[in-house]
Amino acid sequence: MRHALALGRRGQGRVWPNPAVGCVIVKDGVIVGRGWTQDGGRPHAEPIALAQAGRLARGATAYVTLEPCAHHGKTPPCANALIEAGVSRVVCAIEDEDNRVSGRGFQALRDAGITVDIGVLSSEAAEDHRGFFKAAREGLPFVTLKMATSFDGKIATSTGDSQWITGAHARRAVHMMRARHDAVMVGAGTVRADNPLLNVRGLGVSHQPVRVVISETLQGMARSDVQNGGWFVHPKTADVSALSPNARSVPYQGSLTDALRVLAGQGLTRIFCEGGGGLAASLLSENLVDDLVCMTAGVVIGGDGLDAVAPFGQRVLADAPRWTLVECRSIGGDVLYRWRRA
Amino acid sequence: MRHALALGRRGQGRVWPNPAVGCVIVKDGVIVGRGWTQDGGRPHAEPIALAQAGRLARGATAYVTLEPCAHHGKTPPCANALIEAGVSRVVCAIEDEDNRVSGRGFQALRDAGITVDIGVLSSEAAEDHRGFFKAAREGLPFVTLKMATSFDGKIATSTGDSQWITGAHARRAVHMMRARHDAVMVGAGTVRADNPLLNVRGLGVSHQPVRVVISETLQGMARSDVQNGGWFVHPKTADVSALSPNARSVPYQGSLTDALRVLAGQGLTRIFCEGGGGLAASLLSENLVDDLVCMTAGVVIGGDGLDAVAPFGQRVLADAPRWTLVECRSIGGDVLYRWRRA
Repeated sequence: MRHALALGRRGQGRVWPNPAVGCVIVKDGVIVGRGWTQDGGRPHAEPIALAQAGRLARGATAYVTLEPCAHHGKTPPCANALIEAGVSRVVCAIEDEDNRVSGRGFQALRDAGITVDIGVLSSEAAEDHRGFFKAAREGLPFVTLKMATSFDGKIATSTGDSQWITGAHARRAVHMMRARHDAVMVGAGTVRADNPLLNVRGLGVSHQPVRVVISETLQGMARSDVQNGGWFVHPKTADVSALSPNARSVPYQGSLTDALRVLAGQGLTRIFCEGGGGLAASLLSENLVDDLVCMTAGVVIGGDGLDAVAPFGQRVLADAPRWTLVECRSIGGDVLYRWRRA
Repeated sequence: MRHALALGRRGQGRVWPNPAVGCVIVKDGVIVGRGWTQDGGRPHAEPIALAQAGRLARGATAYVTLEPCAHHGKTPPCANALIEAGVSRVVCAIEDEDNRVSGRGFQALRDAGITVDIGVLSSEAAEDHRGFFKAAREGLPFVTLKMATSFDGKIATSTGDSQWITGAHARRAVHMMRARHDAVMVGAGTVRADNPLLNVRGLGVSHQPVRVVISETLQGMARSDVQNGGWFVHPKTADVSALSPNARSVPYQGSLTDALRVLAGQGLTRIFCEGGGGLAASLLSENLVDDLVCMTAGVVIGGDGLDAVAPFGQRVLADAPRWTLVECRSIGGDVLYRWRRA
């Protein structure tokens, strides 16, 4: 199962709107097939692994990181494929929360006389599928907020100078994190200030995440590099004349929560937000951030620098949202730490 | 020597203006004497260890964490004591940078026919004696700046609410750090806002560090708890009528550097500064901070919170002072990291 989880993770950021699943077929103690969800979400992991196994699948055990699908979508149901291949046992990490599947995949397998064991490394699988599950459960994407700050919490000097606060190792880690998410998202202020590319560079990764800009007015977006293929999320009332034909307009009505709901509706399950301070404040105050990755550099900017998180009216400390530390390590000369919503 | 260093560290924060030295006497593979510099700086480590060893010191090896003194101060020179006790060999971690000693202690021992080996665990010893060496070399105390912030670099909300950002474990660690320094120092703004006690609590420590307040005008200091025995460092021109008879007036002329020079002149070698933002900014911009200890909590306050470091006009990022990471770990649910001036 651990191997199946590792295979599944290869698809993270590449398979939306589908979950990134891994599958390993074992016959008489030998691995005879391995598969993971392919770019764009299909083929699924199971048919790939079964095709590799061929006739050896008969009587074999399949390890799958998520409950095999039971509904006819763009691919035939994987539960059927496992039944038809004649596997005798399916070991699964976790039930699918998608209510088109939820338990039905297991039922179909059991009805066909296949032994089904559920819950092996389920917490690891729940971690890997967090985006897919959150989208299925809440209609919202899983959001990682990244902040790269001086040790006094600033992301630029008073003149806007921000290159570079963290070192090459930390910046490379950011590119790896981008690659593991369906989309990279920033606020319009960051686009106006830095005109970032928001793509994955220097890692030899062929697949690029969607680039998303959240903008109230779309002002100042006209000459941005993100125009080339990027998604611009804006209130329905915004003037879209600034958008080029290459850009995608994603209108929404209501709050930032509603905007993210629209993105989940478009299939995005894992979003990596890189600021700036205004968007970070809005996401945090609307409780939309699941994971927070902070990178802190050994540099001091001082109180006139640009805040990593803009004001959002937090007056009483005891009422401020609390976060749980899940990781803390040095990277290059910087510190990387990850918090999870408490 | 490692044991001698551990013994020496027991004196940190308690022996100023003297160095915190440890000494172990070994005869035929058996420890026959152990000593460390006592509160207030005397007796020194060597005579204590020699007294324990008694006649067994004859022909023994003495491990000392700093070159034995050779000058007649308030105690007779330790080099003489070692010679008179008849030790045959002295193993020393590092030469004393105090120019009253520097090499003379070793010379006296060698002149008496004692074998002298220098440089065992010298970098550890240099670390332990940083305050004493810096005071001797530069006439300035070693300064540790502590910041306890939200993950967006704030030390209080816009209303001044700051209790508590970090958890009980981190706060306890702060008390341990206080106990290892000669003095705890804050700016006048912190005294006005929080009226802190600045003492070591909850650790069963009998000795308390000096409490130091840096104040431009002494305004608002009259009713502070630090008045009871604390030192108030102020420009010579400040009106001292606000100070109670229990407080100590420490006047200076010039910059903050000059103020610290006066403190070093009073014998303080290791100062633990706990802010606030204004004093932190002044210390950082005048390059007076040696070690920086940051504690970051899993809470977000937002841009209208109080900055850990006040503005000091840093406009170009490339010119900002850089720091080297020396430690990074979780403590309770918070992150503790230590930076050193690069």
